[in-house]
Amino acid sequence: MAEGDLEGKLLGSADLLNIVNGDHENRAKPVTSSLPMNGGNGIYSYSKNSYYQKQSAGVEREKIIEEIKEKLDMKTLSSVSNTIRLADLGCATGQNTFMTIQTILEAMQRKYKSQISQSCPHDYDDQMPEFQVFFNDLESNDFNTLFTSLPQDRQYLAAGVPGSFHGRLFPESSIHFVHTSFSLHWLSKLPEELQNKASPAWNKGRIHYTSAPNEVIEAYACQFAEDMERFLNARAKELVPQGMMVMIMTGIPKGMPYSQIPTGMLYDSISSSLMDMAEEGIIEEGEVDSFNLAFYAASPEEMAGIVEKNGCFGIERMELTNPAAWMKGPVDIPTLVTHVRAAMEGMFSRHFGSQVMDELFGRLTHKLLDISDLINSTCQEKVQLFAVLKRK
Amino acid sequence: MAEGDLEGKLLGSADLLNIVNGDHENRAKPVTSSLPMNGGNGIYSYSKNSYYQKQSAGVEREKIIEEIKEKLDMKTLSSVSNTIRLADLGCATGQNTFMTIQTILEAMQRKYKSQISQSCPHDYDDQMPEFQVFFNDLESNDFNTLFTSLPQDRQYLAAGVPGSFHGRLFPESSIHFVHTSFSLHWLSKLPEELQNKASPAWNKGRIHYTSAPNEVIEAYACQFAEDMERFLNARAKELVPQGMMVMIMTGIPKGMPYSQIPTGMLYDSISSSLMDMAEEGIIEEGEVDSFNLAFYAASPEEMAGIVEKNGCFGIERMELTNPAAWMKGPVDIPTLVTHVRAAMEGMFSRHFGSQVMDELFGRLTHKLLDISDLINSTCQEKVQLFAVLKRK
Repeated sequence: MAEGDLEGKLLGSADLLNIVNGDHENRAKPVTSSLPMNGGNGIYSYSKNSYYQKQSAGVEREKIIEEIKEKLDMKTLSSVSNTIRLADLGCATGQNTFMTIQTILEAMQRKYKSQISQSCPHDYDDQMPEFQVFFNDLESNDFNTLFTSLPQDRQYLAAGVPGSFHGRLFPESSIHFVHTSFSLHWLSKLPEELQNKASPAWNKGRIHYTSAPNEVIEAYACQFAEDMERFLNARAKELVPQGMMVMIMTGIPKGMPYSQIPTGMLYDSISSSLMDMAEEGIIEEGEVDSFNLAFYAASPEEMAGIVEKNGCFGIERMELTNPAAWMKGPVDIPTLVTHVRAAMEGMFSRHFGSQVMDELFGRLTHKLLDISDLINSTCQEKVQLFAVLKRK
Repeated sequence: MAEGDLEGKLLGSADLLNIVNGDHENRAKPVTSSLPMNGGNGIYSYSKNSYYQKQSAGVEREKIIEEIKEKLDMKTLSSVSNTIRLADLGCATGQNTFMTIQTILEAMQRKYKSQISQSCPHDYDDQMPEFQVFFNDLESNDFNTLFTSLPQDRQYLAAGVPGSFHGRLFPESSIHFVHTSFSLHWLSKLPEELQNKASPAWNKGRIHYTSAPNEVIEAYACQFAEDMERFLNARAKELVPQGMMVMIMTGIPKGMPYSQIPTGMLYDSISSSLMDMAEEGIIEEGEVDSFNLAFYAASPEEMAGIVEKNGCFGIERMELTNPAAWMKGPVDIPTLVTHVRAAMEGMFSRHFGSQVMDELFGRLTHKLLDISDLINSTCQEKVQLFAVLKRK
């Protein structure tokens, strides 16, 4: 299916995108190790079902260009070293990361030229700094595909950096710009109490904190805050003073229950599909209890609190956007489920077995069709968090 | 077969090692693209037949430690930036590169401590620079295996850099130490005249310049000099002043014909095995004419000339060693052929077809057994070139 065809078919809009985007980066987080997106080119493959992701990434592109133009001091950054170093954290296997890096690089070059031309016009080409780009993802990422897909005409030196961005990846004060999208909402691990029957945070019969008791939500929120603190500490060491960091991830308006946005409805529908299957003896109920998605959506206020507590970064911008603004008309549920399946099947089939996947996604489609009006009524929510920080 | 078993069986010694080592890095050079070592764990697999390589790499280890101790000024290098950057060019997929890097890193740390303790004793732990290591090989290298094999307890930040070392890989003046072993003897491409029937350098009936007319040897030498010039120019940009570069590759004493060393005897035996097969109609004679190994062994004098012509590096050390000094007794020909096959089969089977590989390596074994006395009489030649350069 060509992209154009798919675009024609989507005719819908949903923050369900966030799921698909989310998993884009979740192939191999510790909690869900070795969970690739569906490979190959089959009908459920990620490569044929990742159009949402691409469109969604474009929504924030103009904002990044604007931030660099207005707030990044290229002259100062390049005065210490003539090499400008960029990092994309959670880069996956290519194309999206290459497009983003190209956007950032061109914006930085334009800013550099505009700053230099003020002091010494017509002289900037000789002085243009060299750019080095670090593509980071977990060790289990397919770096071979990434490396063989690198643009031939790139204007930067490329390197791959394997490892968790919750720890150190780069030398001290060596990075000038960090970009990370659709990665930070994945937790480094699941809170242990979710599986503890004696705990009030035991997450029985659900796969996520959507529609769960406060204790479950709190357990997720604590883990997210802990992960973000480790992330910010590592980046604080690595970024040069005045270095910029752009973070794009799933978000949610402050105080809104997760069950009131389409992603939450999807999770609830998956939970209830699985529980139905357990009741019918197709799977074990305990399997549902022991499965949880390590995925958390923060509000801008919550994220700002974490950044301020850390203290190493100034907040240049922090806002929610609608990632689906480019979509028109109602959500096409079957196409959406195909997208969700391409991105998430690995995670479910590893736990529940591949033999029940058709059953699960078939039931899911029916459940979502039943609530399609509700989904459509909420699908213009702003559930993408866009944050720009600057190293103090 | 455990390494210990294999060691017990080798009981021989040969610069034939160089072939095996050579191919270790040749999985994917442009001229021989997609030519992996034999994978898996079968009887002809590289993993079960690469003991020679490991032993051979160890021969130069002590020399590297010595050079760092005596000639690398860690205090000056770390005074500009607190990050020391190392690069291993042609790193392949692991273990050997990790061992080498560990050796270099520990030697650098010791040197740093000894220099600092003279000025401010007991204070060096706080100041120890951070180390960043760049593992480089061609885009087609298996970086996934490299990254998942990285030592868990490494004391450095790791990055992979895909691309040809005949061009730029790193930012200007950013690297403090370069190591490259068993890679530089592979040419970036084959001289075109080798396949031109009208040229005096047409290499009819041979797979290498061994036993070839001077014009063929000259064509190889020119390509090598051109490749080295590009390599040195790129490294000259990347290395900081006083940065060190260790190059280990196949070499040969000045003026010695290649046919007088075991590797040359092997090449001649492969050529004549193939020509016999062509005469018997098993393969086409034209296939032999059109196949050439892009492999060149320089003498120390030749290499020194290239380095001096380039002008950016001082020569700290340039010498030949016997890579097989650790071996005892005569060469075990069948075991050696198994090693050669594990390393080179891909190259031959792609050109001649996998169906003739048993035939080829069977004939090769017989031919080498016939000249085993000759091989043994020459197998203590010094055919490993060890060079240490310093950026001026």
